[in-house]
Amino acid sequence: MTKQVNIGILGYGVVGSGLYQLLVRNGEEIAQRVGVAVRVARVADIDWTRPRPFLPPEELRTTDAREVIAAPDIPVVVETIGGVGAALDLVREALMAGKSVVTSNKEMIAKHGHELLDLAAAKGVDLFFEGAVGGTIPIIRALKESLEANHLDTILGIVNGTTNYILTQMSDEGRPFEEVLADAQRLGYAEADPTDDIEGFDARNKLAILSAIGFGLRASVEDIFTEGISHITPTDLRYAAQMGYIIKLLAIGRRHDGRVELRVHPTLVPRGHPLASVRGAFNAIFIHGDGCGDVMLYGRGAGDLPTGSAVAGDVIEAARNVISGCRGRVLCTCVADAQVVSMGEVETRTYLRLRVADRPGVLGKIATAFGEEAVSLASVIQLDTDGRVAEIVMVTHKCPEGCLNKALRRIEALDVVEAVASRIRVLDEE
Amino acid sequence: MTKQVNIGILGYGVVGSGLYQLLVRNGEEIAQRVGVAVRVARVADIDWTRPRPFLPPEELRTTDAREVIAAPDIPVVVETIGGVGAALDLVREALMAGKSVVTSNKEMIAKHGHELLDLAAAKGVDLFFEGAVGGTIPIIRALKESLEANHLDTILGIVNGTTNYILTQMSDEGRPFEEVLADAQRLGYAEADPTDDIEGFDARNKLAILSAIGFGLRASVEDIFTEGISHITPTDLRYAAQMGYIIKLLAIGRRHDGRVELRVHPTLVPRGHPLASVRGAFNAIFIHGDGCGDVMLYGRGAGDLPTGSAVAGDVIEAARNVISGCRGRVLCTCVADAQVVSMGEVETRTYLRLRVADRPGVLGKIATAFGEEAVSLASVIQLDTDGRVAEIVMVTHKCPEGCLNKALRRIEALDVVEAVASRIRVLDEE
Repeated sequence: MTKQVNIGILGYGVVGSGLYQLLVRNGEEIAQRVGVAVRVARVADIDWTRPRPFLPPEELRTTDAREVIAAPDIPVVVETIGGVGAALDLVREALMAGKSVVTSNKEMIAKHGHELLDLAAAKGVDLFFEGAVGGTIPIIRALKESLEANHLDTILGIVNGTTNYILTQMSDEGRPFEEVLADAQRLGYAEADPTDDIEGFDARNKLAILSAIGFGLRASVEDIFTEGISHITPTDLRYAAQMGYIIKLLAIGRRHDGRVELRVHPTLVPRGHPLASVRGAFNAIFIHGDGCGDVMLYGRGAGDLPTGSAVAGDVIEAARNVISGCRGRVLCTCVADAQVVSMGEVETRTYLRLRVADRPGVLGKIATAFGEEAVSLASVIQLDTDGRVAEIVMVTHKCPEGCLNKALRRIEALDVVEAVASRIRVLDEE
Repeated sequence: MTKQVNIGILGYGVVGSGLYQLLVRNGEEIAQRVGVAVRVARVADIDWTRPRPFLPPEELRTTDAREVIAAPDIPVVVETIGGVGAALDLVREALMAGKSVVTSNKEMIAKHGHELLDLAAAKGVDLFFEGAVGGTIPIIRALKESLEANHLDTILGIVNGTTNYILTQMSDEGRPFEEVLADAQRLGYAEADPTDDIEGFDARNKLAILSAIGFGLRASVEDIFTEGISHITPTDLRYAAQMGYIIKLLAIGRRHDGRVELRVHPTLVPRGHPLASVRGAFNAIFIHGDGCGDVMLYGRGAGDLPTGSAVAGDVIEAARNVISGCRGRVLCTCVADAQVVSMGEVETRTYLRLRVADRPGVLGKIATAFGEEAVSLASVIQLDTDGRVAEIVMVTHKCPEGCLNKALRRIEALDVVEAVASRIRVLDEE
C-alpha cells in the first residue's frame, strides 16, 4: 500500500524548481517503485513575481518559510535557498522542530555541516545533502554508504562546471580566459559575479565536504589551499597539450600518514586519465580506495533537473525513513578533525613557463638555481623566441613545494629572467 | 556507542575472502564511522583445504552452511557461493529464517531476484546485491536510491571485465581473439571455461538486473538478445578505429513507448563517448534519465577486494538496518514485467564487412539489394583487394534489424558475394 509523505520546499530558484518539476512529472512512477508517494505540500519563496518556467499552483505557495517549518503535516523540509544567511537559520530551526532536512547548500554543509549533523542526530532526524557536491552525481551516498568499507586515500574532483566549461572552451578554441568567461556569462554557464567559481571557492567548499565524508576527517575551508583559473592562458593549454596533458581545475584530497592534503588548483592531467575526458559543464569525481581501487562517477554538475534529481533522491530517502520509522539512520560519518599538510610540505610535479633573455648560458643559470634547492627537472623545452625574449617550459620531478618556492625566488632574482609566467601543478600518476 | 552486528559468510572464494579481508583490515575505521561494528562470526565453505591467500581463524570456519544460517546470533548472512544450485537453496533458507541476505550472485538475482525479493519483503528482512553487477561500482544503490526520481531511458554497460580486457588487448596489439583469450586465461582474467563471459551470458544476467532496477521492468534472461565476442577480428577492430570507433561488448537497455530493448552484443562505440575510454578489466555503466541527464559510473568489474568492497557496503547497510530496526526498508522497486522489443523491430546502425568478387558492378548489385529492403548506407569503403577477392566495409543508416536481415539474405545469395564476414552493431549517438 502506498503511503504519503508531505514535504515543504524553502527557496524556489533553479534547484527548487527542478526538484518540484521532477516530483510532479515522475510522481506516479516514484510512488509505484518506492511505495511512498512524495507530495509537495508547501513551497516558500520570498518573491513569487520573478519569472520562472514552471510554477507550483497558487495554493501551495507562501512567502513564509517558517510557516512551512511549523506545519505539523510536513516531516521533511527541503532547503534550496543557498548561502549561510537565512538558509542556515531556517535549517537549524527545521532540525530543532524535528523535521528531516534535505539541502543542496554546499557552503552551509562545508562550513556548518558538523554542527547541523550533530543537531540532526540529537533530534533523531535526517540531514541529507547529495545535491551539494557534483550536481546529479550520487557521490555522497557512494562515499557514505557504498564505499564505506574502504580506506580511501585519494579523492580527485572536477566539481565546478563553470570552470570546466571555460577551460574546455579555451582549450578547444585557443581563446583567452576573459573572452570565454564573457561568453559563459552570456550563456548562463557563469554568474554575473563569477568570483566564487573562477577563484575556486565553490570547489573548495565541495572538497571540504568530500574530505569529511570520504576520509572521515573534517577540515575547515580556510585550511584548503585554493587557486583559481583566471591566470590560465591559451599558451599554457597549448604547451600542456603538446606534452600530453589537459588542464583542469581539480579539487584534490589525499590521505597519507594520518594527515590529509587538501588543495584546489588548476592541474595538468595526463590525457589518459579518466578525468581528462570530462568536458564542458560536466563534473566527475575520481576515488581510490584500498578495496575498490579506482572508481569514477561522472555527470552534470549543476542545473535545475540534474541537481533536482540529486535532491529528489534524498527526499525519497528521507520519506522512506519517515515511513520506516528510522530517521537518523545515516548521519555524521566523520572520525576526527583533519590534520592538513601545509603546502610547503606537499610534494608535486610542477609545470613552469619562464620568460627569459634569449642568450647563451641562461638555461645553465636556471638549472643551477633549481639544483641548489634540490629541485630536479623532468623535461625542459625552449620555445618561441623573438630574438630578445625566449620562453622556457619545464616540468619538475616531484618535490616539496617549499623547495620549489625557494628555487623560484632565486630564479626570479636572476637578471636573465624576466618572469615566471606560469606555474601549474601536475597530477601525480600513481 | 558502537553496537555490534554478527555476520556469517557462505562460500569462501574470491569474493568471500575479499569481503573478509576488508572487514578485518578496516574494521576499526568502519566501526568509528558507522557506529556499528561488523563482526564476522562464522564462515562456511565446503573445502578448507584449497590454498587461499588469507584465511579466517580456525574457530570461525565451518563446512556446514546451515549451521551459519541457524545461528541465532547472526542476523545477516552473506552468500558468495555463486550459481543457482546450493546458493539459491541457502539464500531461500536464510530469508525464511528471518536473516537479511547480502549476495554477489548475478545469476541468482537475474533469474530469481523477484521471488527472493518478495520473500525478503514477506519476512521483513533485507536482500542486497550490489556486488552482482559492475564489481565495485555502486550502481545498484545509485539506480535504486539516488536516481530514483528519474525516468531513465538508457542504460549502457560495459559489465564484463574479461571481454573488455580481451577486446582492449586485441585492439592495442592487433592480435587475434584466440591468442588473447589464451593469455587472459593464463593471467587469471578469463576462466578455464570462458563460455559465460565470451558468449555474453554473464553480461546478459547483469543487464536483466540493471533493467529491472533502472527501468523498474523485469525481463527474463531468455528475452535478452545475446551475442558474444569470439567472432571479432583484429581486421574489424582496425577498420572500426579508422572510422573513429572502438569495439566494446555492451549491455544495452533502452526504454521507449512503454517497451524495452534489451541486448548484449559487440558494439562500435564512437571514440568520444565516455564508454570508449573504459579499458582493460574495468567496467562502466552509462545512464540517461530525464532529470539527471548523462551519468556514468566507472570502476573495477571484478576481483576479491573490489567486489568485496561492494558486498561490504551492503553488509554495513544491512547491519545499520538491524541496529535501526528498519530491515526491509528498500526492497523490490519493479513496477511490472518488461515488454521486450523483438530484435527484428530494433533499429540500429550496423557495420558490415563483405568479401566480394573483385570485379566491376559488384557494389551496384549490393547497393541495389540494400535499397530494395529500404536499408540505406551511410558510408562505404572498398579495401584490401588481392585481385580476386575484395573487402567492402560499410555502415548502414539506422534501420530495423528485420529489414537488414532480409537485405543480407539477398546479398549472401548474390554470386559475386563470397561472405558477409562481419556484422557489428553501432551505438546510436543521441
